[in-house]
Amino acid sequence: MTRQLSLGAFLMATGHHVAAWRHPDVPADPLDFSVYRRAAQVAESACFDALFVADSVAAPSDALASHSARSVYFEPLTLLSALSVVTERIGLIATATTSYNEPYHVARKFASLDHLSGGRAGWNLVTSDAAAEAGNFGRQAHIGHAERYARAREFQQVVQGLWDSWADDAFVRDKATGQFHRPDGVRALAHSGEHFRVKGPLNVARAPQGRPVLVQAGSSESGRELAAQSAEVVFTAQPSLGAAQAFYADLKGRLAGYGRCEDDLKIMPGVYVVVGRSEAEAQDKAERFQALVDPRVGVALLGRMLGNFDLSGYPLDGPLPELPSTEDGQRSRQQLLTELAGSEGLTLGQLGQRIAGGRGHFSLIGTPTQIADQLQAWFEGHAADGFNILVPHLPQGLEDFAQWVVPELQRRGLFRTHYQGRTLREHLGLQRPANPYFS
Amino acid sequence: MTRQLSLGAFLMATGHHVAAWRHPDVPADPLDFSVYRRAAQVAESACFDALFVADSVAAPSDALASHSARSVYFEPLTLLSALSVVTERIGLIATATTSYNEPYHVARKFASLDHLSGGRAGWNLVTSDAAAEAGNFGRQAHIGHAERYARAREFQQVVQGLWDSWADDAFVRDKATGQFHRPDGVRALAHSGEHFRVKGPLNVARAPQGRPVLVQAGSSESGRELAAQSAEVVFTAQPSLGAAQAFYADLKGRLAGYGRCEDDLKIMPGVYVVVGRSEAEAQDKAERFQALVDPRVGVALLGRMLGNFDLSGYPLDGPLPELPSTEDGQRSRQQLLTELAGSEGLTLGQLGQRIAGGRGHFSLIGTPTQIADQLQAWFEGHAADGFNILVPHLPQGLEDFAQWVVPELQRRGLFRTHYQGRTLREHLGLQRPANPYFS
Repeated sequence: MTRQLSLGAFLMATGHHVAAWRHPDVPADPLDFSVYRRAAQVAESACFDALFVADSVAAPSDALASHSARSVYFEPLTLLSALSVVTERIGLIATATTSYNEPYHVARKFASLDHLSGGRAGWNLVTSDAAAEAGNFGRQAHIGHAERYARAREFQQVVQGLWDSWADDAFVRDKATGQFHRPDGVRALAHSGEHFRVKGPLNVARAPQGRPVLVQAGSSESGRELAAQSAEVVFTAQPSLGAAQAFYADLKGRLAGYGRCEDDLKIMPGVYVVVGRSEAEAQDKAERFQALVDPRVGVALLGRMLGNFDLSGYPLDGPLPELPSTEDGQRSRQQLLTELAGSEGLTLGQLGQRIAGGRGHFSLIGTPTQIADQLQAWFEGHAADGFNILVPHLPQGLEDFAQWVVPELQRRGLFRTHYQGRTLREHLGLQRPANPYFS
Repeated sequence: MTRQLSLGAFLMATGHHVAAWRHPDVPADPLDFSVYRRAAQVAESACFDALFVADSVAAPSDALASHSARSVYFEPLTLLSALSVVTERIGLIATATTSYNEPYHVARKFASLDHLSGGRAGWNLVTSDAAAEAGNFGRQAHIGHAERYARAREFQQVVQGLWDSWADDAFVRDKATGQFHRPDGVRALAHSGEHFRVKGPLNVARAPQGRPVLVQAGSSESGRELAAQSAEVVFTAQPSLGAAQAFYADLKGRLAGYGRCEDDLKIMPGVYVVVGRSEAEAQDKAERFQALVDPRVGVALLGRMLGNFDLSGYPLDGPLPELPSTEDGQRSRQQLLTELAGSEGLTLGQLGQRIAGGRGHFSLIGTPTQIADQLQAWFEGHAADGFNILVPHLPQGLEDFAQWVVPELQRRGLFRTHYQGRTLREHLGLQRPANPYFS
């Protein structure tokens, strides 16, 4: 079989477009479970590899937060646990920060979700860079970039060690003798490091997938190194085919240094997709969302994306102001947006509006053929192993993609027409990791 | 309508009896979701008020842990989120410790579950007294009793404050103007106390129940005071009608000191129930489980219950050894078991076997009539507002209770024949709390 691409469905409340909730067809309640259920079932019918849920451990507090639907939403693990029951095959990837969590809790919840779902869990490991998050966990300021990544690396190692607490065949459940597990089928982790001391073992059996799939999204130097060392899927925002190719080559090139193969890590750029039966219909649809954007709301979103800057004092028809240099973690996003504004001569207001849908991700607006052409070019041009699909509104945007774009990808032999596997690892073509402590 | 009793179904993996998993009819996999689904649906068909899930953030590590089915199990919030989708009315109460958690995470997950389930979430607030739990969170020894309760009190206040972050009517979702929520419908908590500094607001809207139901189980002096101050349901282990009446009177008597009414707190003792069509059948059934208990396993369980003592060096046919005095939190349980051994002249091995099923809870083994007589006597004798039902094995033990005992309680007019309400608060007859910050 030829190489197949992977598809993730990014589930953001009401949709990825900042003004989606204002659209007359969009259910505007980010806590309406039925919307997620519908979206998940649509994505599963279309054979998507996974659902993906982002996260933050704080509510936005800027002046225009009251105009955003993203103030309240489901906690990702409770949401995906619920969705695990109404789906059978699709992967379930939740974001959880390493900055304000304990590795034991995180290891446990994802292992639990993997058991609940029969091997469909994935953990999107992130670090927190928002001061608002720090304030909810007893800190005045957020942890610096370098320390965040050092902590994340150790956190990931502890979680992985906890996931390997039990041998796959530890549980003999011998009713006659009364032995439930082999005493030599379990080990305490006894981790003692700079950030964590964790004894273990985990109180969840080894996961059906061995370990839940490890996803990351950082694009900074530290982020790339951490991904090369441990990630199995990388989500990324790339503004163009060329940039995506450079990122792809760079990241894949780092794997050998950690004794890993290129196939051990799948790179899935985010793509914002608006599809129509004709190009005009697609453009018209995209513009209907754009017209709903209050320019001040777009600029507030821009400020958050650039590193929690308050841009409300700058004129909408002026340029993007010079920003103080930020730390490593936000620099890549800042650079991306500054270049975009410069190359197209956008005003502050226009830039805010531009990112209202894709939020810095590559945008594809067109017919199914046009969209499939682009995805194919990225996929075959060594820019992507698959895509995280962002749609303007839920559940309709996902229905459009499933109905029009997926069949076109299937016709071209690029995407499965039915699930071959049962676990997320199987969908992605990732090996089930052996347990190094019991081999 | 006459006063109705409440029923909780205690879902413990494989069943409450320590040897349940060895029974030929019992599915011996504590990570088999289908068993929980079946148990939940049986309990809902029988109109139970709630499901209840206990928790620990450590795996047992004693010498006989390999003979227990309680080493691995689902994390309660992921489990109950999944169960929320396959049930419609029954309450969902999960345990979460205040000792090794952050209030923001706990507030968020329970609020999220309340939204997922349409107002059916309850939080069983506990403190952790096991050294093994401390070791998974960077501590050498567990937090002392007094500090644990001080922390728990502050933790509960922060969680409650976060649950009140949003006005019930904050979300106007005005598509025309673009205003999603009223700016004056949200407030930061800005809590700064001895154990926690938490800014808020929570990133989940106010829960359908206003606040998830607050459950507690501590029976020590500090536990009773905390319960009198804030709990809405109390689970408790009481060895006899007299002891239960004393506890009931004591706890209800403390409420006025906090400006609360007797109806604001429901007391639900745990009852271990084995039911048969005849008394002989019930006894026979109970004894089949008892015969499966390896006496060393019973003694290991006893050691854990008495405060993590290793009793494996003591002769099984000797008496319960003198134990070093433990801290306040375990004293009540220690006293209960020492009295039980003394009054019946039980050897160590016999005491271990005795607690193998009920684990110190009151036991009822008999016909539906006999069991209903006892429950009625406790309920009408001011010993209980309801019961947390512990069954030896799952799902069968719950099916037996639902099929035989529930109809008898219904015939007597003591228990509902259908749900009148939709939320856990409505089932329990508890008021929906107003939001003090937006009234």
